[in-house]
Amino acid sequence: MKGMDHPLERLVFFSDAVFAIAITLLVIEIEVPDFARAISVAEQWGELAALLPSFFAFVLSFFVIGRFWMGHHALFSRIMRYDRRLQWPNLLYLMSIALMPFAAAFLGRNVGHFVPELFYNATMLLCAALNLLVARVARQAGLLEPAEAEEFTDRPLSVALGALVCVGLTFVMPLLSQWGMISIPLWSRLLGRKPAT
Amino acid sequence: MKGMDHPLERLVFFSDAVFAIAITLLVIEIEVPDFARAISVAEQWGELAALLPSFFAFVLSFFVIGRFWMGHHALFSRIMRYDRRLQWPNLLYLMSIALMPFAAAFLGRNVGHFVPELFYNATMLLCAALNLLVARVARQAGLLEPAEAEEFTDRPLSVALGALVCVGLTFVMPLLSQWGMISIPLWSRLLGRKPAT
Amino acid sequence: MKGMDHPLERLVFFSDAVFAIAITLLVIEIEVPDFARAISVAEQWGELAALLPSFFAFVLSFFVIGRFWMGHHALFSRIMRYDRRLQWPNLLYLMSIALMPFAAAFLGRNVGHFVPELFYNATMLLCAALNLLVARVARQAGLLEPAEAEEFTDRPLSVALGALVCVGLTFVMPLLSQWGMISIPLWSRLLGRKPAT
Amino acid sequence: MKGMDHPLERLVFFSDAVFAIAITLLVIEIEVPDFARAISVAEQWGELAALLPSFFAFVLSFFVIGRFWMGHHALFSRIMRYDRRLQWPNLLYLMSIALMPFAAAFLGRNVGHFVPELFYNATMLLCAALNLLVARVARQAGLLEPAEAEEFTDRPLSVALGALVCVGLTFVMPLLSQWGMISIPLWSRLLGRKPAT
Repeated sequence: MKGMDHPLERLVFFSDAVFAIAITLLVIEIEVPDFARAISVAEQWGELAALLPSFFAFVLSFFVIGRFWMGHHALFSRIMRYDRRLQWPNLLYLMSIALMPFAAAFLGRNVGHFVPELFYNATMLLCAALNLLVARVARQAGLLEPAEAEEFTDRPLSVALGALVCVGLTFVMPLLSQWGMISIPLWSRLLGRKPAT
Repeated sequence: MKGMDHPLERLVFFSDAVFAIAITLLVIEIEVPDFARAISVAEQWGELAALLPSFFAFVLSFFVIGRFWMGHHALFSRIMRYDRRLQWPNLLYLMSIALMPFAAAFLGRNVGHFVPELFYNATMLLCAALNLLVARVARQAGLLEPAEAEEFTDRPLSVALGALVCVGLTFVMPLLSQWGMISIPLWSRLLGRKPAT
Repeated sequence: MKGMDHPLERLVFFSDAVFAIAITLLVIEIEVPDFARAISVAEQWGELAALLPSFFAFVLSFFVIGRFWMGHHALFSRIMRYDRRLQWPNLLYLMSIALMPFAAAFLGRNVGHFVPELFYNATMLLCAALNLLVARVARQAGLLEPAEAEEFTDRPLSVALGALVCVGLTFVMPLLSQWGMISIPLWSRLLGRKPAT
Repeated sequence: MKGMDHPLERLVFFSDAVFAIAITLLVIEIEVPDFARAISVAEQWGELAALLPSFFAFVLSFFVIGRFWMGHHALFSRIMRYDRRLQWPNLLYLMSIALMPFAAAFLGRNVGHFVPELFYNATMLLCAALNLLVARVARQAGLLEPAEAEEFTDRPLSVALGALVCVGLTFVMPLLSQWGMISIPLWSRLLGRKPAT
């Protein structure tokens, strides 16, 4: 048995490490203010306030990456044996996750501008789509119990649809486009042919 | 049994990785001096001395993150099964830990200024409060033995009170406000209804 | 048995962490554009388009490091006991992998220039050569079953030959030199004395 | 038994992660050249050559951190149970390791200058001294078999003496001071009351 689940553990470990590094790197993209000696307290608050968009992008992306990690965690806790076919889809998925710190920094420094907002939402959509790909490959390779497989492909599909709404909203109101994610529970319910456990 | 503690291990692993990355990233926030060819040895010492506040923030934050990690290590060594309810509080807690490299860099470059000192102490308070939240959730979910549960919630409460003292001291003497942490053993004793083992 | 494979696990873990960090650090080498208030959407697209070479280097290097990781994963899944002789070759190999984020950034900012292209291809060649060294040491130390050993040394040899083609192509057409990697399957077939399983 | 060695594994894991991050972060301290369009190939080589000291510091520090990691690996493979007393010395040791990327960058950009050379050698001495402390604490806590304990404290002592020679050499010939490390085998032999296995 060890010879079978060991490669899976290493794949999971490598993925966890990429998620953890991506989520922790988010913070180093926030530029650190360097005060002059004689700066007033009001000016200090002003410099900190100028970073609010960066903090917004940090918190938002921390939850986005964290939530994707939880999904990966839940999916792989059900995959009971290693299959070589998981490698490439999983690597592609990790690449989209590794892109998030750039997308977050690009958004944080340019909140409300069309291109950074679109880039951020498109990166989320890419993550969700590749997450879906990993779940589908796992399903087709017979690594999931059929009864559970639907849950693990429906879930990322809802997220992908929510990200698609964000992408659409960018054309209407870039600054608030990430609110499109609140549609995710709605998609979940629409797709949910049977209640989740 | 494997099917039960495996998700817990992955949660612990992910948390460890975030702690380790946050603690090691601290150093890259120290700006590296670039000397001109003809710089004298005295001037070299001067450039290094100008980094003393950054080294202070590095060492302080290394111990703060390290101590929080030890607490996480102690708490999770007692949690014997995975519970989904741990996920979100733990992620929030990790977010506050991941913010520490920014807080440390902000402090290190602007030691003694009110806003960076307050930001640093508030970040410590946030970490302590979310640490407390994780311990409370673990307790309420019945993941800790009742006899031990108190110890694991009292401990972060003492740290939170110590961080609160730091926040208060910022208004009186920003430069020395982190000394408020020496009140932690006092709070521990006041809260300690029974001796710790 | 635990006393025997534990040091191996730690070696594998350390290697995985270095691979994961190197692959995730790739993204922070992409410079984040900082837009002025009044920038037009067309100009925003222009600034993003200027980063295309950096994205190319990111994606390419993600696959290169990811593929090397998969090879490491496959090789070490067959090595069933720890041997001290693996340490130094493996550390050298990890050093070449850790150099990739620099090579990628150097390439991404200066695509088409001779020296960065050569540096990138030479770094790939170095990775492949040291990968080969690790496999050979494992083979000579008797850590691989003889029947499988050939597969694990042939594979990195094909990659090394592919990287050598890239190095050669740099002198002819630097911008397209990485296409030399498409010769890898050819080398695999030429070397493949028996079909891979 | 699981309840006993699990905290040890997490301590080892956390340490491994810090070592792996520190060793991989070394590369991001090398400044990436940004070429102008019309730069000649000779000028490109010139810009790369200007980074030679940074590459020297990268390679040197990769081996230094790698060697310290191997020592940690060897020591902890003999420690068979967790002891709380290991935590603080180990954290201090990790702090000195985490300082290495700064020391390496400081050296790489200012090779031959007295202060950066001294800082680098002093950081190595600090790492070796704290490594020795960890081994001594493990010995005093009875975590090592007495027959082996000597080997694990003699080894870091030799490294500390070698680093001390480097520190001394800085006052005579800063540029070549790291050659003091070649005295390590000599110290090992002088200390070696019995042959190492």
